[in-house]
Amino acid sequence: MTSSIDSPTEKTATRKIKLGAFLIPTGHHVGAWRHPDVPADSGLNFSHYKQLAQTAERALFDAVFVADNVAVTLGKGADKVARADYFEPLTLMAALSAVTEHIGLVCTQTTSFNEPYHIARKFASLDYLSGGRAGWNLVTSDAAAEATNFGRAEHFAHAERYERAEEFFEVVSGLWDSWDDDAFVRNKASGQYYDPQKLHVLNHTGKHFSVSGPLNVARPVQGRPVTVQAGSSEAGRALAARTADVVFTAHPALAPAQDFYRDIKNRAAQFGRDPDSVKIMPGIYVVVGKTAEDARQKFEQLQQLIEPEAGLALLGRMIGNFDLSGYPLDEPLPQLPLTETGQRSRQALLTSLAKDGNLTLRQLYTRIAGGRGHNVVIGTAETVADVMQEWFEQGAADGFNVLSPMLPSGLTDFADLVVPELQKRGLFRTEYEGSTLRDNLGLNRPESRYR
Amino acid sequence: MTSSIDSPTEKTATRKIKLGAFLIPTGHHVGAWRHPDVPADSGLNFSHYKQLAQTAERALFDAVFVADNVAVTLGKGADKVARADYFEPLTLMAALSAVTEHIGLVCTQTTSFNEPYHIARKFASLDYLSGGRAGWNLVTSDAAAEATNFGRAEHFAHAERYERAEEFFEVVSGLWDSWDDDAFVRNKASGQYYDPQKLHVLNHTGKHFSVSGPLNVARPVQGRPVTVQAGSSEAGRALAARTADVVFTAHPALAPAQDFYRDIKNRAAQFGRDPDSVKIMPGIYVVVGKTAEDARQKFEQLQQLIEPEAGLALLGRMIGNFDLSGYPLDEPLPQLPLTETGQRSRQALLTSLAKDGNLTLRQLYTRIAGGRGHNVVIGTAETVADVMQEWFEQGAADGFNVLSPMLPSGLTDFADLVVPELQKRGLFRTEYEGSTLRDNLGLNRPESRYR
Repeated sequence: MTSSIDSPTEKTATRKIKLGAFLIPTGHHVGAWRHPDVPADSGLNFSHYKQLAQTAERALFDAVFVADNVAVTLGKGADKVARADYFEPLTLMAALSAVTEHIGLVCTQTTSFNEPYHIARKFASLDYLSGGRAGWNLVTSDAAAEATNFGRAEHFAHAERYERAEEFFEVVSGLWDSWDDDAFVRNKASGQYYDPQKLHVLNHTGKHFSVSGPLNVARPVQGRPVTVQAGSSEAGRALAARTADVVFTAHPALAPAQDFYRDIKNRAAQFGRDPDSVKIMPGIYVVVGKTAEDARQKFEQLQQLIEPEAGLALLGRMIGNFDLSGYPLDEPLPQLPLTETGQRSRQALLTSLAKDGNLTLRQLYTRIAGGRGHNVVIGTAETVADVMQEWFEQGAADGFNVLSPMLPSGLTDFADLVVPELQKRGLFRTEYEGSTLRDNLGLNRPESRYR
Repeated sequence: MTSSIDSPTEKTATRKIKLGAFLIPTGHHVGAWRHPDVPADSGLNFSHYKQLAQTAERALFDAVFVADNVAVTLGKGADKVARADYFEPLTLMAALSAVTEHIGLVCTQTTSFNEPYHIARKFASLDYLSGGRAGWNLVTSDAAAEATNFGRAEHFAHAERYERAEEFFEVVSGLWDSWDDDAFVRNKASGQYYDPQKLHVLNHTGKHFSVSGPLNVARPVQGRPVTVQAGSSEAGRALAARTADVVFTAHPALAPAQDFYRDIKNRAAQFGRDPDSVKIMPGIYVVVGKTAEDARQKFEQLQQLIEPEAGLALLGRMIGNFDLSGYPLDEPLPQLPLTETGQRSRQALLTSLAKDGNLTLRQLYTRIAGGRGHNVVIGTAETVADVMQEWFEQGAADGFNVLSPMLPSGLTDFADLVVPELQKRGLFRTEYEGSTLRDNLGLNRPESRYR
């Protein structure tokens, strides 16, 4: 990762940027749903998602990516935010598989309140529905509002969440190997449907799960659907370095992104993995225009749509589920206790953003109302491509998860303006490399553990 | 239900047969996968399912229907049966929602090894994806092989399964009412996304579940997705009569089907429901040909494909998960203990079938290799329509769940031969009545419990 823009090595000459389209129903800006160009009912509007997925596919994105919560966040200002009604991600991705042909379909499912058998099965099913385009964003859940939807008074403590997640992944990946790739012989003449020698019963018994198997789906098209993770804590980084194919992360500037990139690659190597088999994809919030002034106006127009209660609700949630509604808007960010949620790294990031910039509460929520702590780029396609090229070539990113301010127009802008610029620079594909998500990401198809 | 074929009342003149297409990947006959016209990889072949759903929609079926298990049944002969690799039903139905426009999408999810929040959410999501065409076949699980995939050494006892199922349905239907139909105001000018007065937090605490809510999906398009049940036991009938919109059932002959029909309708009335709001749809195994001889040949051709081990495995499972592989094929059915599984009524049915017909083990599995205990009709479209008309007009059925011997051809035969005959007799629709599954089934959209 020592190559520079001026002296591309052969590796950088052939290496290409990977792109995910991170879809939030109306877009990432907290006020986007109020914009006249945005369908306010996007969360449960399949035509909208179909258009987004097809736009991303036309622009040759590797994948669309959808986050998730298994609860509605209530509290002051929640009724001002477009965040209470949206498709369940696996059903959405399955539907999108039928109206797309090439693009990866990556969605979030929590390990905290699910059963490994269901998760292994549903992603294997999605992998077959899509011909090898499924991806699982593996998360743990830290919100009390989620725990109480699943019979728990409290969410799991941080360490237990990760311990459970690790065992969960072990079981899921074991179930995906239930059948050898050639187990289903389906010999019509002999009447032999599968070869029992090529069936493996998992019989897992662990601290959190006891699962016999086998899975009732053949080994997935990709061997294993792509696994995405976004942990930033020590436990999160360790799990990602050991098991993830893609790491999604948030860094507002190059230097910390480089540190993170180096750390994950080093950890992967220590686990005996090829560092190139873990793709690091930071988020990037892109407001792009035909001119710098055009981009600036788009940005400002959305900033005008921030309802203070909504901005404060967003900030309170991102900084660790605190209710900030009592605090004066034009005073500095109050001193908050260390959050017990998974938002600890985001809390540190936002706290230092506020401190370094000497920001009031209002200024802080205004600052993060779109980018949410991710790298923010506002300008022409050249400006955006410059930043992406720098991060890509300076050891901060293998690709990017693109956050559009509003949808569908933000994604269309990116497709029409930024993608051609990246292609012109030789940084992005001009056609899909293969038929599966792994093919396009440049990831090998894993061998079964039983080979 | 006293009208006859000769003297239709006004009610029977307007009343129409409802039709479900019960899809098993390769068809219902245990040897179907070996037939040259059947794609043997159907279970994980989306093109196959797309064709089936579109054929059923072209023929104006109310719904496609998919059963489920959350385990692979192992044991002697299992490797001869096409029953180990198939799509997870919810992801399959979500994908089908994108390639169909009118037909209902009904799939099975067990209450034994799921969380009500996930189930409420996924069916609500499917209801939005499909514009109001979702249906849930609510079952309980009785197989030990299923229990051990979910951390249990044993399956739940019968009574506990139903107690759990009842509470499960209470929670799911409560979550579907989390939001009033007009809760999402999405006022761009004021910044009000939803009206908090129209939000209802469930706060359910019961014996089996503790679920706070609200659901993170708006109230479903149909108010509640259609609920299908197939219980035959006392507990199963009581739950169905109280909560089901559609009851699926298996009867080989008219008289017991009439008894069942009358019983469920009476029970529904005792629960204060309009008996017409519960649709009874027995299964019917249809082998139809252009001539009686053509149908007979189709039937026989499949009968030739029964591999003895496969036939015995099917019979053993249907009669209550017994391993029959040790018994001589040309002796009578051995005396078996009363099954502890949910197959108790099927066990009684098959046992009396064997006894009444003085059947050997081989004759018994041959007899049920296609119809599996359901009503079997082999003949021309007129013959099939005669039986359906009789059952429909003589108080045995509001419609039928059609079991095709092999797929896709069996469904195409039904669509091309039987449907026109039913239409000619005025017994079946010539266009869809409405846009939702409830509309087509003639079921009201339920009011929220909070109205």
